[in-house]
Amino acid sequence: MAAGEIFLGEIREQPAALRDLLAAEEEIAEVGRRIGSRPRLVRLVAHGSSDNAASYAVYAFGILSGWTATRDSISLSVYYGAELDFADSLVIALSQSGRTPDVVSYVERARARGALTVAFTNEGDSPLAGAAEILVPVHAGAERAVAATKTYTNEVAALALLAGHAAGRGEEVADGIRAVADAMDAAIPGLDAQTRALAVPFSFVGRMVVIGRGIEYGTAREIALKLKETCRVAADALTATDLAHGPVAALDQLFPVWAIASDDAALPAVEAAVTRAREVGALIVASGSAAAKLEGAAHVLATPAAPLPLLSPLLSVLPGQLFASALSSAKGLDPDEPAHLSKVTLAPQPSEA
Amino acid sequence: MAAGEIFLGEIREQPAALRDLLAAEEEIAEVGRRIGSRPRLVRLVAHGSSDNAASYAVYAFGILSGWTATRDSISLSVYYGAELDFADSLVIALSQSGRTPDVVSYVERARARGALTVAFTNEGDSPLAGAAEILVPVHAGAERAVAATKTYTNEVAALALLAGHAAGRGEEVADGIRAVADAMDAAIPGLDAQTRALAVPFSFVGRMVVIGRGIEYGTAREIALKLKETCRVAADALTATDLAHGPVAALDQLFPVWAIASDDAALPAVEAAVTRAREVGALIVASGSAAAKLEGAAHVLATPAAPLPLLSPLLSVLPGQLFASALSSAKGLDPDEPAHLSKVTLAPQPSEA
Repeated sequence: MAAGEIFLGEIREQPAALRDLLAAEEEIAEVGRRIGSRPRLVRLVAHGSSDNAASYAVYAFGILSGWTATRDSISLSVYYGAELDFADSLVIALSQSGRTPDVVSYVERARARGALTVAFTNEGDSPLAGAAEILVPVHAGAERAVAATKTYTNEVAALALLAGHAAGRGEEVADGIRAVADAMDAAIPGLDAQTRALAVPFSFVGRMVVIGRGIEYGTAREIALKLKETCRVAADALTATDLAHGPVAALDQLFPVWAIASDDAALPAVEAAVTRAREVGALIVASGSAAAKLEGAAHVLATPAAPLPLLSPLLSVLPGQLFASALSSAKGLDPDEPAHLSKVTLAPQPSEA
Repeated sequence: MAAGEIFLGEIREQPAALRDLLAAEEEIAEVGRRIGSRPRLVRLVAHGSSDNAASYAVYAFGILSGWTATRDSISLSVYYGAELDFADSLVIALSQSGRTPDVVSYVERARARGALTVAFTNEGDSPLAGAAEILVPVHAGAERAVAATKTYTNEVAALALLAGHAAGRGEEVADGIRAVADAMDAAIPGLDAQTRALAVPFSFVGRMVVIGRGIEYGTAREIALKLKETCRVAADALTATDLAHGPVAALDQLFPVWAIASDDAALPAVEAAVTRAREVGALIVASGSAAAKLEGAAHVLATPAAPLPLLSPLLSVLPGQLFASALSSAKGLDPDEPAHLSKVTLAPQPSEA
């Protein structure tokens, strides 16, 4: 098998993986019923791509169900032993492998302190699944490329479903994901061709900024991570607004900006950031359902509009994944097995864990 | 005045600025009394350097007072109009100028929804000061360089003081800051000379990762921001653990890692990350009170131990600020007025704000 075929194959499998998740949707509906009324706080813990899905969940819970969700500090509990109040907290821990050590430690501590703990994982037989009270399998099937794709999108979809069920809108979200899967299938071939062409002039780019805001901030983080993992690009994810608070000073013609524009309430922030970036001479790649609205972009990678705006991130991550696949190949790298990475990251444990 | 003298001058003024804050400490003690018992949640909102101080506050409140604090999403309230429950929330908004538009909007909305709102700002006569119920002046004096230094450290110290007063340990924290100011004065000349020497071989470095974990994660973010603002380096701040979850694949000899090591419970995570980075051939700059414990570092910028470990970030940011000053000058840039930046960043407002 040629280098990169596994990674690209898994990108293309994402619509099918979403349908597999939908087939098991009743599991998530049941979790929604067990969680019941609004928790004091939803605490999300994860690393890497799963942490980017957690960024999305802050918006899914906030917008759909009005719950306050936060990406919680792991080290505060695991390393510092902080005396936090976990009563009425809902903990959602995400890990593709279910084996991320400090996430498992966090869940054990939070559960001992009274949190309701839920594990989202692709491995039902894992330490994380054992540590949490409730298991949500993400049903992405075996993921063989080191860089995550379909486990990321299935985590995002599973989080949207849970937030939807918490808000009594589970059916609407499920129908939306079904339509998104079809839209993905339709969009992938064209985006694949576009990103292969774009990869050629980017072969010598070593630095990029990826911006998004609101529901697309997690997408920006995920695209930046793919570029770091598979293309060795120093890609920094920023909220559109934070770009202007300092980092814009570093941009120039050889330091391009990838902007994710969804047609939603946060679009003005992205438009303003792109205007600033253009003023300093940065080349702009515009992606997302509102990509065509970003004036002056050198490259436009439009994605279909999602039936529910909140589900846009499932589609807007596609151009970034496909571009990472194409750029990695253009650079002669192997995105299936990036240098120095393994599929499961075993972080150090605190000595007293 | 030569380029960079304002920025460097303000770095050197930090001990004096901390003493000015301490002279007004009773203001913060009074705020601590008004806040009273544990809020359901501390919601921190800010951009840029102030947001990096907010990263620190998550740990200050967690460790000192056992309060759960989070850097809240601004766009969820300001752009998406999410129906969040702000009852029993303490909002802390940080802005050097007090004029960051979406931060002001957030405070207005949170206050209308029942939050207790506190503004930390260097400008008492500002929209933010007017919007919040309680004002905490950070007493840094006029800051003229575009890239923040003394307003950042005074925000960090003011947040530590408030967390200390909330925990009945205000005096201990104040005494600690007093000792830190003296330690800063003693350390600056040596670090200044060291970082000037280090800047020479870094003149052509365009990409860096800055890592820290726990209480030093905010420091990592702040040093990375200074490098972006004043040196045009693509500097990505990561928690030590997140480095291994993908980004390590991008490192090589020309993509160095700046590691912040404090002598505290999170040190094993930093040590493990440095080992991984060395395995892939990355050059390591070690800074902080435990810098000498990081094996194989090419450069060591040790800082004095803080009397209270929680106050280490006030000292460990110094090598990064001084290095940014030196590298900016070595590159022929002007850190006082970086290209394309202005002191006050006026972000776009949502149309319906």
